[in-house]
Amino acid sequence: MSSKISPLAPKSYAKLPPIEGLRIATAEAGIKYKGRTDLLVMLFAEATEIAGVFTRSKCPSAAVDFCRANLAGGKARALVVNSGNANAFTGRKGRESTRITAEAAARAAGCSEAEVFLASTGVIGEPLDAGRFAHLLGDMAVSARPDRWPDAGTAIMTTDTFPKYATATVELGGVAVTINGIAKGAGMIAPDMATMLSFVATDAPIAAPVLQSLLSAGTAKSFNAVTVDSDTSTSDTLLLFATGAAARRGAERVVDAGDARLAPFKRALNRVLHSLALQVVRDGEGARKQIEVTVTGAKSSRSAKRVALSIANSPLVKTAIAGEDANWGRVVMAVGKAGEPAERDLLSIWFGDTRVAHQGERDPDYSEAATSAYMKNEEIAIRADLGLGNGKATVWTCDLTKEYVEINGDYRS
Amino acid sequence: MSSKISPLAPKSYAKLPPIEGLRIATAEAGIKYKGRTDLLVMLFAEATEIAGVFTRSKCPSAAVDFCRANLAGGKARALVVNSGNANAFTGRKGRESTRITAEAAARAAGCSEAEVFLASTGVIGEPLDAGRFAHLLGDMAVSARPDRWPDAGTAIMTTDTFPKYATATVELGGVAVTINGIAKGAGMIAPDMATMLSFVATDAPIAAPVLQSLLSAGTAKSFNAVTVDSDTSTSDTLLLFATGAAARRGAERVVDAGDARLAPFKRALNRVLHSLALQVVRDGEGARKQIEVTVTGAKSSRSAKRVALSIANSPLVKTAIAGEDANWGRVVMAVGKAGEPAERDLLSIWFGDTRVAHQGERDPDYSEAATSAYMKNEEIAIRADLGLGNGKATVWTCDLTKEYVEINGDYRS
Repeated sequence: MSSKISPLAPKSYAKLPPIEGLRIATAEAGIKYKGRTDLLVMLFAEATEIAGVFTRSKCPSAAVDFCRANLAGGKARALVVNSGNANAFTGRKGRESTRITAEAAARAAGCSEAEVFLASTGVIGEPLDAGRFAHLLGDMAVSARPDRWPDAGTAIMTTDTFPKYATATVELGGVAVTINGIAKGAGMIAPDMATMLSFVATDAPIAAPVLQSLLSAGTAKSFNAVTVDSDTSTSDTLLLFATGAAARRGAERVVDAGDARLAPFKRALNRVLHSLALQVVRDGEGARKQIEVTVTGAKSSRSAKRVALSIANSPLVKTAIAGEDANWGRVVMAVGKAGEPAERDLLSIWFGDTRVAHQGERDPDYSEAATSAYMKNEEIAIRADLGLGNGKATVWTCDLTKEYVEINGDYRS
Repeated sequence: MSSKISPLAPKSYAKLPPIEGLRIATAEAGIKYKGRTDLLVMLFAEATEIAGVFTRSKCPSAAVDFCRANLAGGKARALVVNSGNANAFTGRKGRESTRITAEAAARAAGCSEAEVFLASTGVIGEPLDAGRFAHLLGDMAVSARPDRWPDAGTAIMTTDTFPKYATATVELGGVAVTINGIAKGAGMIAPDMATMLSFVATDAPIAAPVLQSLLSAGTAKSFNAVTVDSDTSTSDTLLLFATGAAARRGAERVVDAGDARLAPFKRALNRVLHSLALQVVRDGEGARKQIEVTVTGAKSSRSAKRVALSIANSPLVKTAIAGEDANWGRVVMAVGKAGEPAERDLLSIWFGDTRVAHQGERDPDYSEAATSAYMKNEEIAIRADLGLGNGKATVWTCDLTKEYVEINGDYRS
């Protein structure tokens, strides 16, 4: 938790209403940080259903292994999240730590260990001593309350400079349901599954397989379309909980992903995921600008996304934008190196509404002054049209500043 | 050309002897830089043979297009290189510029345009006005001398802080032959062909197809095994010239790549290429440390190289080393994200001679103090053993510092 808040932080935080069937508690366990909360517990009503997506890293954290195993059951009663230690690359000790935490959480929540979900974020490779916090879970379960979403957002922060919240209320079959979400990000952010940690909950009664299909689809254009530094975390975890409490207010349970009543819910969920993912970018380590990269005219949307990520992950593009330099030659470079079909002499590039390059050379009408003025903005949009097909993709990133280097040059010590 | 010289610059520069059949001239053409040379001409004796490798960018520069077309002929009489403007993404104007330059160079050298080779380095997207320097080529051809290798190295610099030279003398069939090379690098350096510009010459009489096979093989473990920032240039060009002048001293012409007499020459050429590539890394923008990344125990050497590059290109690994932090958890992350076969619980990691992680967790015998002391070194070696097979690869990179961001935040302006 840095003392300097990102200039891209929201002017005011979203107010998250309680979700029926869900209670929250946080605590200061002193795992690594002092004088701040670093432990979050969420408790869910019986029959709460769950979906999740995880890092594709070949070296996943112990908590990710644990969640993957439990996800098949589709039911959740407790979530325990700690910040300050990722419990990743901790071998047998890591598995022992998840076992102790899950046992304590199951006892506290009065459920089976198969209904417990865990997430850890922080330093990789340090054993996580569950003894530091397992004994706190019982009291936390007693004191947990539905109105503690703001506390939940801050307890999971690491190098984040602001907590990330999003909420939406929408009708499901004529009944109002709520979707709340929190996230943490900052560094080691690359789009190969949910970015670090995010937890989303709803009172809508939706069966786990339907939740999973909504979540997997929604991730592609939100968390999997953002990148801070191209470095995929060992711990990426995005969980979606549905307490089903709205059923008591007449909402019928949805058990089919093709159910027409889902459409507004799906759109609202996607808005929440998109908002959280963008907040992660806007709190990218050292970020001062948000960058939206759109690639059009690619051979396929898969190809478009690869080219967009090549641009978004290019250190030279990101430093140019940090320097407010409309250096579109570096966008050409990033298109060229992506390894995807591209034809130099069909390529056009825009910064905002200004077309700076067209069909393989500088646009003759391009105004350097207008483009330079545009680069002063906090939000920069880059578009590259490849002129080859109909493939299209948008990804989001932030600029690369000296502060990123500073933050990461002494994070562990 | 920065005023602050890299702390990794060589203590003294290699002294390059003349190569018979090769003359050099440089000039101040004022293309972009003032008060320094920015134009290099090399003139080669008749029957000089040539080999080359180029960027794999889909958006290659006009000079790269030009060289590729001429390479098939296998003969070279003139090389013209300018710094300050890459003549890349310049469309029809770019082709016009190479045409004018080649015409002037052919006239100056008394050769055909098919025997002229061109390279340009600098800003992308600005038209290169050949009228600024084409008229200088005639006088340069007259004044060119064999002993001007030091001038050649400085004329091609952009953000380089030191010129890059390498030389070797070796016997070929009982006759001493020389190999000289120069290179320029600094940023937009990623291993997908020669890194920006490098020119190597020898007086050995070796046929173009043999030269090409030596060069392609030598590139894999030199220029294609270094990365500064993962950004592949539009202009990467590595040319190898053989004047054949040593034939007059009794060296027999080599026309078969399997010729046993080639072995010492091949080793010497590889040493020259390796030295130049390492100098490029050591002059990486903002570099303060050289990093050698070795991956062993991979399923294949191709897989090992991909994992090694994932480590070498990770901003989090590079910033940790800039901060002298033995943050091996980030090496775990980079192995995990590489998309190659890896098993967390078989993975071991070394910093220098210290094994910091073993079989999926922190090495119990690992001394933080010893490792921290090691991180103060100027040259850092990281090894990751995947424990899966016999695949092995080594790549080289530099750390990521605030100076990299500074240099690239205002390069164009």
